[in-house]
Amino acid sequence: MTKKIPTRLYLSEDEIPRFWYNLRADMKEKPDPILHPGTLQPASAEDLEAVFCKEPVKQELNDTERLIPIPEGIREFYTAYRPAPLIRAYFLEKALGTPAEIYYKHEGTNTSGSHKLNSAAAQAFYAKEEGLASLTTETGAGQWGTAMSMAAGFYGLDLTVYMVKVSSEQKPYRKALMETYGARLIPSPSDTTEAGRKILEKDPNTGGSLGCAISEAVETAVKTAKCRYVLGSVLNHVLLHQSIIGQETKAALDRFDIKPDIIIGCAGGGSNLGGLIAPFMGEKLAGKSDIRFIAVEPASCPSFTRGRYAYDFGDTAKTTPLIRMYTLGSGFIPSANHAGGLRYHGMNSVLSKLYRGGFLEARAEVQTDVFDAAVKFAKIEGILPAPESSHAIKVAIDEALECKRTGEKKVILFGLTGTGYFDLSAYISYNAKTMGDHIPTDEELERGFATIPDIPQNK
Amino acid sequence: MTKKIPTRLYLSEDEIPRFWYNLRADMKEKPDPILHPGTLQPASAEDLEAVFCKEPVKQELNDTERLIPIPEGIREFYTAYRPAPLIRAYFLEKALGTPAEIYYKHEGTNTSGSHKLNSAAAQAFYAKEEGLASLTTETGAGQWGTAMSMAAGFYGLDLTVYMVKVSSEQKPYRKALMETYGARLIPSPSDTTEAGRKILEKDPNTGGSLGCAISEAVETAVKTAKCRYVLGSVLNHVLLHQSIIGQETKAALDRFDIKPDIIIGCAGGGSNLGGLIAPFMGEKLAGKSDIRFIAVEPASCPSFTRGRYAYDFGDTAKTTPLIRMYTLGSGFIPSANHAGGLRYHGMNSVLSKLYRGGFLEARAEVQTDVFDAAVKFAKIEGILPAPESSHAIKVAIDEALECKRTGEKKVILFGLTGTGYFDLSAYISYNAKTMGDHIPTDEELERGFATIPDIPQNK
Repeated sequence: MTKKIPTRLYLSEDEIPRFWYNLRADMKEKPDPILHPGTLQPASAEDLEAVFCKEPVKQELNDTERLIPIPEGIREFYTAYRPAPLIRAYFLEKALGTPAEIYYKHEGTNTSGSHKLNSAAAQAFYAKEEGLASLTTETGAGQWGTAMSMAAGFYGLDLTVYMVKVSSEQKPYRKALMETYGARLIPSPSDTTEAGRKILEKDPNTGGSLGCAISEAVETAVKTAKCRYVLGSVLNHVLLHQSIIGQETKAALDRFDIKPDIIIGCAGGGSNLGGLIAPFMGEKLAGKSDIRFIAVEPASCPSFTRGRYAYDFGDTAKTTPLIRMYTLGSGFIPSANHAGGLRYHGMNSVLSKLYRGGFLEARAEVQTDVFDAAVKFAKIEGILPAPESSHAIKVAIDEALECKRTGEKKVILFGLTGTGYFDLSAYISYNAKTMGDHIPTDEELERGFATIPDIPQNK
Repeated sequence: MTKKIPTRLYLSEDEIPRFWYNLRADMKEKPDPILHPGTLQPASAEDLEAVFCKEPVKQELNDTERLIPIPEGIREFYTAYRPAPLIRAYFLEKALGTPAEIYYKHEGTNTSGSHKLNSAAAQAFYAKEEGLASLTTETGAGQWGTAMSMAAGFYGLDLTVYMVKVSSEQKPYRKALMETYGARLIPSPSDTTEAGRKILEKDPNTGGSLGCAISEAVETAVKTAKCRYVLGSVLNHVLLHQSIIGQETKAALDRFDIKPDIIIGCAGGGSNLGGLIAPFMGEKLAGKSDIRFIAVEPASCPSFTRGRYAYDFGDTAKTTPLIRMYTLGSGFIPSANHAGGLRYHGMNSVLSKLYRGGFLEARAEVQTDVFDAAVKFAKIEGILPAPESSHAIKVAIDEALECKRTGEKKVILFGLTGTGYFDLSAYISYNAKTMGDHIPTDEELERGFATIPDIPQNK
């Protein structure tokens, strides 16, 4: 049973990366600057610091330094669950009968169940260093809220989580998990904010949305002393923190001299995909490799494949700074879908720029196909994947089967962002064959696009 | 951050143990033989093979060979989730301010969420080798049923799981998980068996019990062609398979020359505890070490601390072979308790003999104290533990605090049998402060003892 490459390619604790990889430093064409929503001028650090913690704001605006040191206080937290295993999918390769080698980086081995903890740890650490007392955030599916609850608890910060009301009702266990770690949960929309009250007035029975929960969390952060807002995806500093995924993966692959041909990640706001590909894309931008990168999004929320490249708001109430990105419009309402983490109208600006530049491909997948792949993977590899991660699994299997057809021995790497242990209602619906997926009509997309701000930069 | 001992003491895949450790070979006084319930004579392999698979029966009766080879077909399955990490609890040590070193073996990193998969893999493998088509089993809390679903799915066997009715209603997600892996779930008692029908006749609204689910699973196995019954605890071959836990733990500790002073495990039927301590207890029995071993059981189901040492049945319908063990009587009904995996009336015969011989200590802990420890552990170490495992955590913390008082630098090792991801209703009840625990009165115990068979061997 001695294999040249083991099933798990572990790094030692000493090899937890000392630097995050800031991909923007490698880009000749940088992402466009974030705009202040009032002045429509590039937002300054000062503008952003009204909402976000100071160090993350610096990181948000830093597009020149490639390697940014990870503070020891964050690396210490990382030892609680990192390095994360990189797994050779021997069982899956055999079951598919493919000549391809398949690897996946498993980010679901921590209690929050996903990669979100990587940035939660960093943001909580910086908040504590800055002398803050509390943080606010929002959560939809619950991964980010759980991760923030764990991190805030660890560093001794109060945390208020606005949880999309329908999620909070459907996922009492997620709620319990966050509360066990000491967070205060508020179903959104709520009467604790103006943004919430305004929406409740219009529609008292609304189930809420991520965009609305963001508005409430931002409003509370701005109005509370020694409090800031933290976000789990979309922003550049979040992708920076998530580059620990790519840094570890690259170190483990390099040790065995393995060069991936294709790297695949699911994409909602882009944090996992951006983190996983960072150092590899750096090589590609430098002309040193020819890797294909594939972003996989749900067909119900197709920001890349059917969205527009434009400046847009991050929230429904249109209070956040403007980011130039692929977007469906902040007013776009994706159909119910079990991959809650991927139901966001916009996409990180770095990934958007790379997609626009042809460095990154994108595919949209239908929910039932994604769950076919998820259940296959669960049975063969023994790990029940998160619905989000299963988008990447679907495309990894497709690419491996394509290798079987052509006889090519490609090396396929994908990000397993998390486990599906808190998403079993999705599997119940799949097992009962009641799962569907609504692909938005052109008209529905147009209604979303109509909410993109009509500003000179979007002409 | 370079530590002498890393947070995670990993073995490499090549170091997955090649042998199980059969502790009975080291015992001068062997456990008493299993009796045929009809003849009251020692059960032969043939007797047992009517119910169980052949190779496990051989293992059940083998009390002379110390090292039993693990077939390659099982070791291959083990690579899907093993070696399991042994973790140095640096965060917990610091939080407690104890001079003790604390280690825990984390068996919850697989999708079934517990150590149960170790024996499920072995039993499914042997069933397939023997040419069987299907297996039956029962599950209470759901860990064993999930583990068997994964293993049966992997080796291509049909599996019917009788799930205690009240659990099946309270844990729809556990049920979904098992069904995703291809198992057929039947709430017990059911009308598919005589045992079930008899109980339903008496009490149509019963929520069922583990003892009754066992009766149904055994009956179905015996009446079905090419079908056998598998059990997840109590029996010696199950403890044998679980000795992989102890074998891996000892190999990892030996590498760093660490000698445990105290080893702690929760005990329901005894599979995790027996597996964890096997090679260490072997050394103690040989006079080569002076380790203290502590079994922790729930105060609501105190087989060791308040039970009787007697021959007893494994099931309510009194159909199984008789085992000499610490028991509360097969008719004992433990109060509702969230550590479903520990609510069993009897205890494995090897552990019972060792306890009787003074080689093993036992403690009973109250549920709320156990959850205090669980939540503390979750916040400090970042892993949400299973209610069962939290019994061991409680005592490990107590021992570490005792070291703080005395200034002793003891090495404490405990088994983290699994995660609490599917037990969040327990945490909800704890967070809401509605959790209680009923300690059985002497009268209630007497009612249980009255169901212990009145046979000559019990005089």
